[in-house]
Amino acid sequence: MTAPKIVYTLTDEAPALATYSLLPVVSAFAKAAGIEVETSDISVAARILAGFSDRLKEDQRVADTLEELGELAKQPEANIIKLPNISASIPQLKAAIKELQSQGFDLPDYVDEPETEEEKDTHARYAKVLGSAVNPVLRQGNSDRRAPPAVKAFARKYPHSMGEWSKASRSHADYMRGGDFFSSEQAITMEKAGDVRLEFVGKDGKVEVKKTLALEEGEVLDGMYMSARQLSNFFERTLQECKKDGVMWSLHVKATMMKVSHPIVFGHAVKTFFKDVFDKYGDLFDKLGVNPNNGMASVYDNIKGLPQSQQEEIEEAIHACYEERPEMAMVDSVKGITNLHIPSDVIVDASMPAMIRSSGKMWGRDGKLKDAKAVMPESTYARIYQEMINFCRTNGAFDPTTMGSVPNVGLMAMKAEEYGSHDKTFEIEADGTMRVVKADGTVLMQHEVEKGDIWRACQTKDAAIRDWVKLAVTRARNSETTAIFWLDAERAHDRELRKKVELYLKEHDTSGLDIRVMGYNRAIRTTMERLVRGKDTISVTGNVLRDYLTDLFPIMELGTSAKMLSIVPMLAGGGMYETGAGGSAPKHVQQVLEENHLRWDSLGEFLALAVSLEELGMKNDNKTAKVLGQALDKATGTLLENNKSPSRKVGELDNRGSHFYLTLYWAQELAAQKDDADLAAKFAPLAKTLEEKEAQILEELAKVQGQPVDLGGYYRLDQEKVNSVMRPSATFNQAIESVK
Amino acid sequence: MTAPKIVYTLTDEAPALATYSLLPVVSAFAKAAGIEVETSDISVAARILAGFSDRLKEDQRVADTLEELGELAKQPEANIIKLPNISASIPQLKAAIKELQSQGFDLPDYVDEPETEEEKDTHARYAKVLGSAVNPVLRQGNSDRRAPPAVKAFARKYPHSMGEWSKASRSHADYMRGGDFFSSEQAITMEKAGDVRLEFVGKDGKVEVKKTLALEEGEVLDGMYMSARQLSNFFERTLQECKKDGVMWSLHVKATMMKVSHPIVFGHAVKTFFKDVFDKYGDLFDKLGVNPNNGMASVYDNIKGLPQSQQEEIEEAIHACYEERPEMAMVDSVKGITNLHIPSDVIVDASMPAMIRSSGKMWGRDGKLKDAKAVMPESTYARIYQEMINFCRTNGAFDPTTMGSVPNVGLMAMKAEEYGSHDKTFEIEADGTMRVVKADGTVLMQHEVEKGDIWRACQTKDAAIRDWVKLAVTRARNSETTAIFWLDAERAHDRELRKKVELYLKEHDTSGLDIRVMGYNRAIRTTMERLVRGKDTISVTGNVLRDYLTDLFPIMELGTSAKMLSIVPMLAGGGMYETGAGGSAPKHVQQVLEENHLRWDSLGEFLALAVSLEELGMKNDNKTAKVLGQALDKATGTLLENNKSPSRKVGELDNRGSHFYLTLYWAQELAAQKDDADLAAKFAPLAKTLEEKEAQILEELAKVQGQPVDLGGYYRLDQEKVNSVMRPSATFNQAIESVK
Repeated sequence: MTAPKIVYTLTDEAPALATYSLLPVVSAFAKAAGIEVETSDISVAARILAGFSDRLKEDQRVADTLEELGELAKQPEANIIKLPNISASIPQLKAAIKELQSQGFDLPDYVDEPETEEEKDTHARYAKVLGSAVNPVLRQGNSDRRAPPAVKAFARKYPHSMGEWSKASRSHADYMRGGDFFSSEQAITMEKAGDVRLEFVGKDGKVEVKKTLALEEGEVLDGMYMSARQLSNFFERTLQECKKDGVMWSLHVKATMMKVSHPIVFGHAVKTFFKDVFDKYGDLFDKLGVNPNNGMASVYDNIKGLPQSQQEEIEEAIHACYEERPEMAMVDSVKGITNLHIPSDVIVDASMPAMIRSSGKMWGRDGKLKDAKAVMPESTYARIYQEMINFCRTNGAFDPTTMGSVPNVGLMAMKAEEYGSHDKTFEIEADGTMRVVKADGTVLMQHEVEKGDIWRACQTKDAAIRDWVKLAVTRARNSETTAIFWLDAERAHDRELRKKVELYLKEHDTSGLDIRVMGYNRAIRTTMERLVRGKDTISVTGNVLRDYLTDLFPIMELGTSAKMLSIVPMLAGGGMYETGAGGSAPKHVQQVLEENHLRWDSLGEFLALAVSLEELGMKNDNKTAKVLGQALDKATGTLLENNKSPSRKVGELDNRGSHFYLTLYWAQELAAQKDDADLAAKFAPLAKTLEEKEAQILEELAKVQGQPVDLGGYYRLDQEKVNSVMRPSATFNQAIESVK
Repeated sequence: MTAPKIVYTLTDEAPALATYSLLPVVSAFAKAAGIEVETSDISVAARILAGFSDRLKEDQRVADTLEELGELAKQPEANIIKLPNISASIPQLKAAIKELQSQGFDLPDYVDEPETEEEKDTHARYAKVLGSAVNPVLRQGNSDRRAPPAVKAFARKYPHSMGEWSKASRSHADYMRGGDFFSSEQAITMEKAGDVRLEFVGKDGKVEVKKTLALEEGEVLDGMYMSARQLSNFFERTLQECKKDGVMWSLHVKATMMKVSHPIVFGHAVKTFFKDVFDKYGDLFDKLGVNPNNGMASVYDNIKGLPQSQQEEIEEAIHACYEERPEMAMVDSVKGITNLHIPSDVIVDASMPAMIRSSGKMWGRDGKLKDAKAVMPESTYARIYQEMINFCRTNGAFDPTTMGSVPNVGLMAMKAEEYGSHDKTFEIEADGTMRVVKADGTVLMQHEVEKGDIWRACQTKDAAIRDWVKLAVTRARNSETTAIFWLDAERAHDRELRKKVELYLKEHDTSGLDIRVMGYNRAIRTTMERLVRGKDTISVTGNVLRDYLTDLFPIMELGTSAKMLSIVPMLAGGGMYETGAGGSAPKHVQQVLEENHLRWDSLGEFLALAVSLEELGMKNDNKTAKVLGQALDKATGTLLENNKSPSRKVGELDNRGSHFYLTLYWAQELAAQKDDADLAAKFAPLAKTLEEKEAQILEELAKVQGQPVDLGGYYRLDQEKVNSVMRPSATFNQAIESVK
């Protein structure tokens, strides 16, 4: 039998830097337990180089590690620690290429509009690196997210701030009452595998096939649309109500996840709020290339070339709209950035919890917090926020010191419920009919649509649903916690899922478990009623609610969703342990470069690694791994308890110092435990050394801070330089190396 | 077999006057179907005379008809039409005595403070007539209230006005979160019949028996208290919140039903709002006999004897409170009557639906409708109003044209859940313990209480509960409607009831029925969600919620609760059919005396009589009675449809004219129906006559209006005079008499 193995991903920016400090500790501890820790470089730089191996010198070539890791994810033995990576935008990609070229790699430039065959080939290779390229490859399972006990205990003891709620708050969520995706949703389940066509039929009877999908047996397919006309009317109504009631207007969409439909929705909001401007300058804007879907920033960017007087005229017209319309919530009131500036500034899953945490208020133009109408056109999910607002208005803000917890089991495997999938979302170009047709001509669904309507379809594979039900039962059993399937009998899609859930629940022993199925309103209300009584409730949800709820509840409970444990139990039996939800944090790197202080908090890595070790121990019947994992969990608790997380300020404890304390506590726990005497004997000396040399190590770590450093690159770091920066304490390094 | 019989009550004021016009019609129609209509005089005057038979001349003596009727109520054949009667206050009683004396009845005067044995005897006899003396005697069953189809159809077609709701409304219900009856409630079920003592144990160990109760086997007894200290703190908090938030403050209690506890609660509100005044003038007020439980009116009344300058000083202090405190909701902004003027002006079950119908607003001092904090200390029931406010705020006002209906099956028999019972409510006089002790010394419940706390107990007999469950199943079956038992698992009392409901439901065939048990929040939410989808839901509730809900939902659905059908299916098998919820309407009598126009709407009588006839038909297998009842129902529908209800204005159609149309439509329905040819033949001529003579009759009815009339009395009418006033159309009278 080969040694059990953990794959630790090397990624980008702050998490990558932290890895240089933490990984030597992890490897040393694991090795003592006979566990191998392998790295897998899935950084942007590595992914670029892998795409152009054929052009590189032999000693420069790297394997396609992402592809390899994707293959591993499909194996039962997979045990992957996944750190946040860059989802590269084009400017980021270009910068990375430039850096690699300067380091001597013969890479072609990125061309925006490829023309030659060679350019097209290059473009296609780079396209694979762009955007969210990693998660779809690695997320070969559903999602299991929860607050680890140590984190929950910390939040109860040291609660984050929560704004008080007034019972007279005017804030509320507002959503379409008709004409949105919710009200038009249709869904079918495929009895047999087969192709379906997504077709548009014009008023003239002409059929245009938009897309052909190969569906599996038991796969659920949804079709739905949002009426552009009703959407604009809805925006106009909300604006007039805000004006009348004197509350701020605030738009909340999810233009990143619903990456085709929601920017269009956002564009309609821009055109409605600034109706007078678009009425007057619409033709000019078209000529200039203004795209309202990109927000008011697109207007400001594109009018820059106009004569000064004309720019001023337009700016005055914009100003007049601000006077005429109700006050709008601000993203940055100092810089004058409104909610309509760019579509990705206000992301509903983060912005709504923030609003609810802040007494239901948003920032006004004068920099003051004010009651607001949170406008969320898609009623499917908006209703849960209104439930929570009503609940807080009635019962007051949640109390982190007493409230229970809401773990989530989310449907995500095999791209389940990717509502934003750009390949199945269409902005309708003329009045007509959108329909879904089987190969034999049977019409499965159809909608009468108008020009401008947004039509979309969405797939959910049966195997993913079946595994999701299994995961829910497993989590309910293992944590002895009530679980609620959030499936709304009023949604066509959820009605299909309800049937499957009913069926697949029978495959499991659910005796003694409390598993319920509820519509969204009742589910969130029941969950909140339990929450304030200190009771935990697993939310078992589809993909969108997974995304929304794993921000909403953690932000109430813990003040942040970054402290959640995020596990992807793979369909094939392996496990992926995701860390951090805060992205790859470019600002943190900036601070390292300027003053050699890394504020990145590796808490997510600690939590993920502990579970990784425990699951590895269980799967391989490796007691040592389990002991190692349990000790790490306790050490993390002590770290939180003693407040040894990184500070934001230079000169204070940073990421490296935090790693020192984790190492100390971990070694102490291992030395103290009775389950594995060998392990205790191995780590007792380390614990002793670190205890004795605490002051010296801290001094060595502290004294390097305050000066600029050179990492030899940003996307592809110089190994020697980064190792020297991230491991500055010789005493600490020596102690680690002494572990056998 | 004797002829089936309906007993029609003669009562007081407007309903009594209307009876003089309607009863001859009813008797004629009934007689044609072989049904006898008997009257039973339960007016204040009759009840007074019955109490002093021994003093009256032989030809003046009357039987104790109320007692007789109470006996009948316990018989299976009881079929009683119960019209509203006067619940006499002392001034009303005195006026009635005076009138009877002037009519030659040798009655003793009413003495406020009886001293001699004779005076005491007299006082005791009069006491039986005072207050709500009729309902406890006659209500020998639980309650079945619903909107008759004709009324519902009318409301859908001609909806009453409903104020729009703003999603940004600041209005809300506020209630105690601890320290109230809800949070201290305890309950037990008696395993065997036996006596229990309600005892107060002082700090010195001295035991004072407040009351001994003889409980039946299976009887549920509750004990609970409200903390005076926490109540005052609660009022202070609500006042400060209103001040801060800029919303009006508005108190809603139920000082009539909770006739001991709620006036005290009201008194604390008065003392808290006017804290500065009571701090400064409290001793003076005590000397003057001011009772804050009687509201600010008590202050104004009692300071009248003071020197002008001192009165002005106090009035200035009161004025200063108005300046300092938040704006208070007004009962009458023109006259300056606030919510704290007298305790019976704002009665929660009527005032909250009115607020919710008016966009969640109450009247301000400036005569404008404004958002308000509705302060209802007792959280047990207040939460349902907050649910409805949140619901309307989210979904808008209810729409009478599309909404469903909420009939009620209420627990009421054998004085079930009389929370206000003055004989089991105590204002605690010193710190100590209130406890409920069995004869053998076992302590069943106990509460630590402080001076000023309000402690109360409440009984519910097993037989009443069992019958209530049966009635719920019967109504669910007969109306094919979902029924929800409102029983809150968080209330001790309701937990006892849940057990019994579970048990007693098994006594019935519930196959195919949808009967649920829910806590109040979920029950009202589910009911409202069904309501807006046009679905009916029977609310099966305890006595207080019976009272609250049979105003709340009817006012949303029908604009008034007076149009509800109110049936008391007696425990013994008989039935009582109550009419009208608007009291006995003294203002209506005033109008008759001044201008001979009676605006009383006998709709309640029509509805009650139709059900009375149908049930009499079913019980006696009397097809004719059923046909008569069904025809009356249809006639009532036509009456509503054609808008032939009484107008408020002199010269227009009044109660008598409305009766003419009812008679016409009823005769037409009978003539047209095919189920009973004999009946059709009997009524065809009447229908024809009335159709032909419509103009003439209307003219005869109209021409008497506009002049003052003399009824020969107010409490005891002169039969000849009242008959002549109420039956002015010779043509109509003749037509009625022609029915054989």
